[in-house]
Amino acid sequence: MAQKPSTPSGTRDFLPEVMMRRERIFQLIRATFQKYGFAPIETPAMESLAVLTGKYGEEGDRLIFKILNSGDFFSKRSKQIVFPEDVAKGEKHFSSLISEKALRYDLTVPFARFVVANQNELSFPFKRYQIQPVWRADRPQKGRYREFYQCDGDVVGSDSLILESEFIAIFDEVISALGISAFSIQVSNRKVLQGFAEYIGEIDKFQEMCVAIDKWDKIGEEGVNKELIGRGISEEKVVDLLSIVGFQGTNEEKLAFLKEKFTGLTEGMKGIAEMEEVLELHQSMPQFSAQVDFELTLARGLDYYTGTIFEVKPLTVSMGSIGSGGRYDDLTGLFGKPGLSGVGISFGADRIYDVMEKLSLFQDERDTYTQVLIIYFGKETLPAALRTLRDLRKIPIATEIYPDPVKLKKQFSYADKKGIPLALIIGEEEIEKGLYQLKNLRTGEQTSYAWKDLIAKILSI
Amino acid sequence: MAQKPSTPSGTRDFLPEVMMRRERIFQLIRATFQKYGFAPIETPAMESLAVLTGKYGEEGDRLIFKILNSGDFFSKRSKQIVFPEDVAKGEKHFSSLISEKALRYDLTVPFARFVVANQNELSFPFKRYQIQPVWRADRPQKGRYREFYQCDGDVVGSDSLILESEFIAIFDEVISALGISAFSIQVSNRKVLQGFAEYIGEIDKFQEMCVAIDKWDKIGEEGVNKELIGRGISEEKVVDLLSIVGFQGTNEEKLAFLKEKFTGLTEGMKGIAEMEEVLELHQSMPQFSAQVDFELTLARGLDYYTGTIFEVKPLTVSMGSIGSGGRYDDLTGLFGKPGLSGVGISFGADRIYDVMEKLSLFQDERDTYTQVLIIYFGKETLPAALRTLRDLRKIPIATEIYPDPVKLKKQFSYADKKGIPLALIIGEEEIEKGLYQLKNLRTGEQTSYAWKDLIAKILSI
Repeated sequence: MAQKPSTPSGTRDFLPEVMMRRERIFQLIRATFQKYGFAPIETPAMESLAVLTGKYGEEGDRLIFKILNSGDFFSKRSKQIVFPEDVAKGEKHFSSLISEKALRYDLTVPFARFVVANQNELSFPFKRYQIQPVWRADRPQKGRYREFYQCDGDVVGSDSLILESEFIAIFDEVISALGISAFSIQVSNRKVLQGFAEYIGEIDKFQEMCVAIDKWDKIGEEGVNKELIGRGISEEKVVDLLSIVGFQGTNEEKLAFLKEKFTGLTEGMKGIAEMEEVLELHQSMPQFSAQVDFELTLARGLDYYTGTIFEVKPLTVSMGSIGSGGRYDDLTGLFGKPGLSGVGISFGADRIYDVMEKLSLFQDERDTYTQVLIIYFGKETLPAALRTLRDLRKIPIATEIYPDPVKLKKQFSYADKKGIPLALIIGEEEIEKGLYQLKNLRTGEQTSYAWKDLIAKILSI
Repeated sequence: MAQKPSTPSGTRDFLPEVMMRRERIFQLIRATFQKYGFAPIETPAMESLAVLTGKYGEEGDRLIFKILNSGDFFSKRSKQIVFPEDVAKGEKHFSSLISEKALRYDLTVPFARFVVANQNELSFPFKRYQIQPVWRADRPQKGRYREFYQCDGDVVGSDSLILESEFIAIFDEVISALGISAFSIQVSNRKVLQGFAEYIGEIDKFQEMCVAIDKWDKIGEEGVNKELIGRGISEEKVVDLLSIVGFQGTNEEKLAFLKEKFTGLTEGMKGIAEMEEVLELHQSMPQFSAQVDFELTLARGLDYYTGTIFEVKPLTVSMGSIGSGGRYDDLTGLFGKPGLSGVGISFGADRIYDVMEKLSLFQDERDTYTQVLIIYFGKETLPAALRTLRDLRKIPIATEIYPDPVKLKKQFSYADKKGIPLALIIGEEEIEKGLYQLKNLRTGEQTSYAWKDLIAKILSI
């Protein structure tokens, strides 16, 4: 019986049209990172389970795809597995006996491992970009996949805030160039959030406070209020906290407001000083249209951020962040190299794609890069058709030939479906006269050209 | 304790220098496929186990990396797993209870599944290329990895031999353009091999005969002789067989020789006719330097090939094939769509890389795309340095700034290690005079330029 041809739940096939659009996004991200001095790296899809476990919280650990030990793991291991005792100890224990590797969950932890593993061959500060898929055993739903690409850029080995301003410029350049004109680059600093915790005297509850504030977008001020109280902060303190987190104003007004509130608070004042410098540096090289907002409700979920944090949000489309990132002071410490400060960002390619689709930014309806389809009618004209094919490709013009001398209508319909813009008809008459009959499949216009004029015409379309 | 930062056995980290070289190979393959009318697709890293199992032979099945069912597979499944009975039934049975997905083993089977799954959205003949990693649980050894990229191009939905001649042209163009000047594109046809079996009256032993002849390169005529006898073909017949398989001569001489030998043999004569046509079509569009050899000892291991088969071999470096492929008549039949003929090729990117390295074809010793490093000395000159940075990137010239105003020597050493060719020194004097001091880090030459001359100079290097 034939196998069902479907992909596993939460994964996708990418057809040419979608691939070509995605490639536009990836290529722009790649080219921009390169222009800013980032070099490419790749890490393996698999990492040792020990490298990944414990880095993404308890929830994250559960979402890691584990790989069964290969070959005859079962017989090799049989002495170690004791039935039914090892089963009784539960899934986590049991799977540790049959699995040692897992698929990467993000690009950040593998990158930290990479830096430590290859430290003697890297020049620091080390600037890398990395565009690879990651896998998460999330429950699949609209817009959430089990396999998706991350596009990350990071610099490790410098705590200069110039790097933060460069990441703002990269966000600005990539998102603008894709045609998404209305977006906000939201910036804050984990030390500002520590300032909030200092301000209400709850520095021990800092992480929980971040998790609650991070939900502001989704559950609103009311919801955050409830969550903070639920996490054991007194109502009075929560009111105090929200009165400053909820402060509205320009970036300058926010800085001035917090400077006053944070007087005497160590981390809070450091955070304000860093925010001020990042915004100033950004002003020294204004570039595109970015609206850069010091956003007090920005918190970011991940524990490892210690300084500046970023999120990019489209303004006219309802969608979560299409980019994010931040500074972390000690990610490589996990792998035995402490004290390397780093900062990085990540583009959400799937969400960027969805935003562009909603904004009708994909105009081209093509399934192919082909510019010209060569149409021929039979064995006699085939050698001339093949020579023309070769000569057009030499220019280079992306050209194909319909491989069988079927009816004209079928050949045209093939070009039409794929979105090939031009057809070149090689008939006996044309060969005799040394002319080439070119049909523009969009306008229907059909004209005969000598070779030189033909090339010029094709290149002009 | 810190985790060990090593990658799993048989997998690799790719550093910038290697990535940039690999990217040159991939980009050329991509661009060539596009020029020949192929469109990109991607399939998920994971496939249902049922899609992959039984397609690669028994040995292949054992090398497939299986993924543990995600989440709490253990408790959900506990009712189905009966201890110790399910254990006693062996690893294959047991792992089927805890694993339903696996990592792709090649790109061909997923492509066949893709074609069937998406048949209503594709225009046939469908030409696609696909460049993605595959995973095999092989014993790692020099030059053999558990994760490696395949670069495949296939056309399904036409049995025209024009496609074969186009694949020869693609091999020719890609390998030549990479600078590998001495190589042979070996071509044969599975029907020619069937002819050999017909000739000795052993058509039932066709597959075994192919497996034996396929080893000619490794074990020589003597070895093939032994293997064939071991597989139950009489000594007399083996001598007969090897006398024609071992025939030496030009392509034309081989065709003439086999035409005589194959007189009256159905499949053999079909094979000769196809070979003749493919070679003729290739001659109608000679393009590069390819030496195309009708190679009688070429057999290819995979069962699904039914027509033309290809292998590309470098001539001056000892290395297996760097490209291969062939025609298959019914691959999509496995997934419920019979009767679609296809033909495809695959570039072995890792081996191509190794050949290029042995031939010293990688001249550039760069770890970066960066052209210019901006060097600055302190806070006062930073705004001017940042403006220059932005303006150079706008050109666009790939530029970075050393993020800290450390000693000149350290900044130069950074540029040197990464292979950045130019340094631009932004000091107070230069800012005052509106001049830019550019240092060529290869020659040591250092000159002051006005902005316009600076850009021209940089672009000329």
